[in-house]
Amino acid sequence: MNVAFIGLGIMGSRMAMNLIKGGNELSVWNRSIEKAEALQRAGAKVCTSVSEVVRDADVLITMLSSPEVIEKISLGKDGIMMNAKKNALWINTSTVNPSFAEELAAQTKEVSLRYLDSPVSGSMVVAEKGELIFLVGGETKDLEEARILLTTMGKSINHLGKVGDGSKMKMVINLMLAQSMIAFSEAVSLGVASGLNEGTVLNILSESPVSSPFLKLKKGKFESKKFDAEFSIKWAHKDLYLILQTAYENNISLPVSAITKEVYGMAKQEGQGDKDISAIYQYLLSKNF
Amino acid sequence: MNVAFIGLGIMGSRMAMNLIKGGNELSVWNRSIEKAEALQRAGAKVCTSVSEVVRDADVLITMLSSPEVIEKISLGKDGIMMNAKKNALWINTSTVNPSFAEELAAQTKEVSLRYLDSPVSGSMVVAEKGELIFLVGGETKDLEEARILLTTMGKSINHLGKVGDGSKMKMVINLMLAQSMIAFSEAVSLGVASGLNEGTVLNILSESPVSSPFLKLKKGKFESKKFDAEFSIKWAHKDLYLILQTAYENNISLPVSAITKEVYGMAKQEGQGDKDISAIYQYLLSKNF
Amino acid sequence: MNVAFIGLGIMGSRMAMNLIKGGNELSVWNRSIEKAEALQRAGAKVCTSVSEVVRDADVLITMLSSPEVIEKISLGKDGIMMNAKKNALWINTSTVNPSFAEELAAQTKEVSLRYLDSPVSGSMVVAEKGELIFLVGGETKDLEEARILLTTMGKSINHLGKVGDGSKMKMVINLMLAQSMIAFSEAVSLGVASGLNEGTVLNILSESPVSSPFLKLKKGKFESKKFDAEFSIKWAHKDLYLILQTAYENNISLPVSAITKEVYGMAKQEGQGDKDISAIYQYLLSKNF
Amino acid sequence: MNVAFIGLGIMGSRMAMNLIKGGNELSVWNRSIEKAEALQRAGAKVCTSVSEVVRDADVLITMLSSPEVIEKISLGKDGIMMNAKKNALWINTSTVNPSFAEELAAQTKEVSLRYLDSPVSGSMVVAEKGELIFLVGGETKDLEEARILLTTMGKSINHLGKVGDGSKMKMVINLMLAQSMIAFSEAVSLGVASGLNEGTVLNILSESPVSSPFLKLKKGKFESKKFDAEFSIKWAHKDLYLILQTAYENNISLPVSAITKEVYGMAKQEGQGDKDISAIYQYLLSKNF
Repeated sequence: MNVAFIGLGIMGSRMAMNLIKGGNELSVWNRSIEKAEALQRAGAKVCTSVSEVVRDADVLITMLSSPEVIEKISLGKDGIMMNAKKNALWINTSTVNPSFAEELAAQTKEVSLRYLDSPVSGSMVVAEKGELIFLVGGETKDLEEARILLTTMGKSINHLGKVGDGSKMKMVINLMLAQSMIAFSEAVSLGVASGLNEGTVLNILSESPVSSPFLKLKKGKFESKKFDAEFSIKWAHKDLYLILQTAYENNISLPVSAITKEVYGMAKQEGQGDKDISAIYQYLLSKNF
Repeated sequence: MNVAFIGLGIMGSRMAMNLIKGGNELSVWNRSIEKAEALQRAGAKVCTSVSEVVRDADVLITMLSSPEVIEKISLGKDGIMMNAKKNALWINTSTVNPSFAEELAAQTKEVSLRYLDSPVSGSMVVAEKGELIFLVGGETKDLEEARILLTTMGKSINHLGKVGDGSKMKMVINLMLAQSMIAFSEAVSLGVASGLNEGTVLNILSESPVSSPFLKLKKGKFESKKFDAEFSIKWAHKDLYLILQTAYENNISLPVSAITKEVYGMAKQEGQGDKDISAIYQYLLSKNF
Repeated sequence: MNVAFIGLGIMGSRMAMNLIKGGNELSVWNRSIEKAEALQRAGAKVCTSVSEVVRDADVLITMLSSPEVIEKISLGKDGIMMNAKKNALWINTSTVNPSFAEELAAQTKEVSLRYLDSPVSGSMVVAEKGELIFLVGGETKDLEEARILLTTMGKSINHLGKVGDGSKMKMVINLMLAQSMIAFSEAVSLGVASGLNEGTVLNILSESPVSSPFLKLKKGKFESKKFDAEFSIKWAHKDLYLILQTAYENNISLPVSAITKEVYGMAKQEGQGDKDISAIYQYLLSKNF
Repeated sequence: MNVAFIGLGIMGSRMAMNLIKGGNELSVWNRSIEKAEALQRAGAKVCTSVSEVVRDADVLITMLSSPEVIEKISLGKDGIMMNAKKNALWINTSTVNPSFAEELAAQTKEVSLRYLDSPVSGSMVVAEKGELIFLVGGETKDLEEARILLTTMGKSINHLGKVGDGSKMKMVINLMLAQSMIAFSEAVSLGVASGLNEGTVLNILSESPVSSPFLKLKKGKFESKKFDAEFSIKWAHKDLYLILQTAYENNISLPVSAITKEVYGMAKQEGQGDKDISAIYQYLLSKNF
């Protein structure tokens, strides 16, 4: 089985590496080719165009940053749609909004591609360990075909329903993630601004039942003030944008998510977009001093 | 040692019961006296006025609903200030804003009372089990004197610093609690409104590292749609009011908490104030159908 | 010059009537044909399909409710793109987001249509009087060709720049409009909830320099509690959605607009979408009683 | 009639000057005495303590910055309460929250002072011209006694009802003012960030019926980017704090005002507090570049 992998960022490169370690023949492509080096040394075939990487692939996996990027890579003369093999299976692990996933799946049908809506939950470290959680929407038989690959990259596979349903669940999880990071940041900021010792606040909060395992993992970043991105502010902002779009399309209001999005946006505008979302703490607090 | 306990609501009644079970002689008072019945059967002396309950007390514990109520009970001819024994120790376990705690402590000094700022983290079930977390601000020697009593009601005692510091940490924790409840509610609402199965969303979310132990405990309420109050919407609203007041006093902005407060406020205005904070989910979603 | 008019809602029907009164030969089309009756009596030719109405038109005017509707009417076998005359001028007076206008203009170029981005400011009464303000983006020569028609429908024509710029200015104005309506509503609600006489509040506020002419026009609706739509809550909600989308695309945060959108959204979810935006006052206040 | 005037800031100094020009004998006091120089040259008697300025006053006028400052100046040995003449009339023109006005009036009663709740609408230029709008709560006979003085400082006197009602109306107006300034700023920011010419946006917006007279007056500040305070960001922030407090006390939610407050707060934290509220525009936009 020929497997193509497109998109070798923080997440994609680690997922691709696990596929290689799992014994799969992998062709890879990335916009900036230098990101493919480690994979090449590990045995991947590095391609120089989208058309080249998809041409012989039975399965095609994408991990890209936004609906716009996916559109660019799927359309046009060099794109996926025009160059993929008939009946190949496209496993899209990127985060997109559900209505985009539905549209994309409809387009793939017209060129006889199969589409599996498969976003993941879990960030860098989790991807590296091969412990991602897959949120899958699509045909059962397509998922069964993909299962062996997904299992190589993740530890849990949830079949939510039809195409789009995986992306819906991804919206749900990332809403929680982005909002709880702000909650934690506002909470610690309040404590510190009112005079409490920062370390004490972090310790008590981390041991309290109000903190999620995800937040506990961020404690070190708060303490060290080093905010290297596992999941960056600009991606949280983008996801919240897609979340609010999905909310609008389904006629539901999300007042707290709406303002959460604007706060990440303000931090991004001030040049913090590439830092980890935990840096939102520093952003809120630094205003105060 | 004579111990007086004022305020026998959901939390106070359970804390007082643990003190009795722990072998303490307890005099109690509550505005509506019927709430004292079970304690009376367990051996508490039920008093009919504040002045009566505090008159002979060496230690005085209060668990009341708001700064306004505490003010009413401490001032005036029948109040704590005019009737407590010289040098008695007042352990205030109620949630108040830090600047109120500081003011109150200053007033107690003038009438030769000692004041321990001791709000608790944990709701009904935790109070019943005697597993509360105490967040203490005040003199070390006062805390040492109180420790045996606190240990009877809680499992962990954190000495944050001077009077007011316990209340600051309480603001920090309740900010997290109120905000993460909204995050969870908005997340599930988005999933359900966009067509996912509610049970599936709850299961995946609860098992995800983005959910805190506190939120996992609420899963049953989401499933059963029974929102009996452990911690009610009106108290979350009040706490957020005190949180925003504290933020203002310390010159820090909390944009997401600000809107969180208004959402609880809207639910309260529509008659949901006495339900558990998890009912905010139903409030957000029911608009949609 | 053959003129086609598509979209005969509250605004479009009045604009079309002014064109007829101005002596233009008009072919019209609307999804629900009954809305064309009065225009037919006034001399318009009523068509039964989009292809029919655009086939012989030199100028094509659209006033439609959303980008989605415009897409539906422009694409496909019966759509504008496939059926309009070469070199015809499409004047789109609908409110759309700037990036949509830009895309649409690019598509029209491919089928040799010319596109004028011409949203309007002003609601029902203003449209009826032919006093609309046009916010135009596009080629100067196209605007000159359109000017006589625009002048028949409006009193002021602002050429902002290239295609998309008219829609940008429209976003700016509607942001003001939707937000100031909420400000007025929150202000009056606060006064009334705190015990002031509603009429007195309305009188003082209306005479104050903080109230815009637009808000003064709404005073009667507040007083009568009759909220027949001049500009409905659902359109304000849609416009704010497009505004926030435009903000995201241009990397600017609009925290207050973000929450304003959610408040209109909540009112819409509760069944108030078809009422005038001034009904947001009743929505906010009625929660309180 | 001896008149005392306390508080000689931007507003108070101009109001006091009009009283002198109107032929009144005025004793004045201010925390920093240099602000009294011009008034002294105009004939005012400058006092060096609160007790001195109020001792012989039949009418006492205050224009102070916050409830906290008023409390400080009214309580204590040197304060108004202990030193004012029996039956003197205290006209408080400061902006305070209604519940504070009610409490203060109750306290004055105990020391046989009369209290007129008389906040003003209008900023620096309006104060200088003697064209303030008075929003009065209190006894009719007290207002009649004060009327000649109020007329000297303002052009319109509105008797809203009992003590506190003037302050309620002031909350209503300042909510409008602070929110509409943000609306205008977000609107212009959106236009400029999306590529429109700033001057064009300002021109069209200013001539549009969506702009209030108050906003039109700010146009020059936007154009010159000089934001000398007529009404500063820190006072808008404080007023919104009092507004939200009043909303809470009256069980009404104001979601948009809540976030408006936080935005002014963020600007204040970043050192913009002393600039005019129109500088919020620069604050929002500068993030973007």
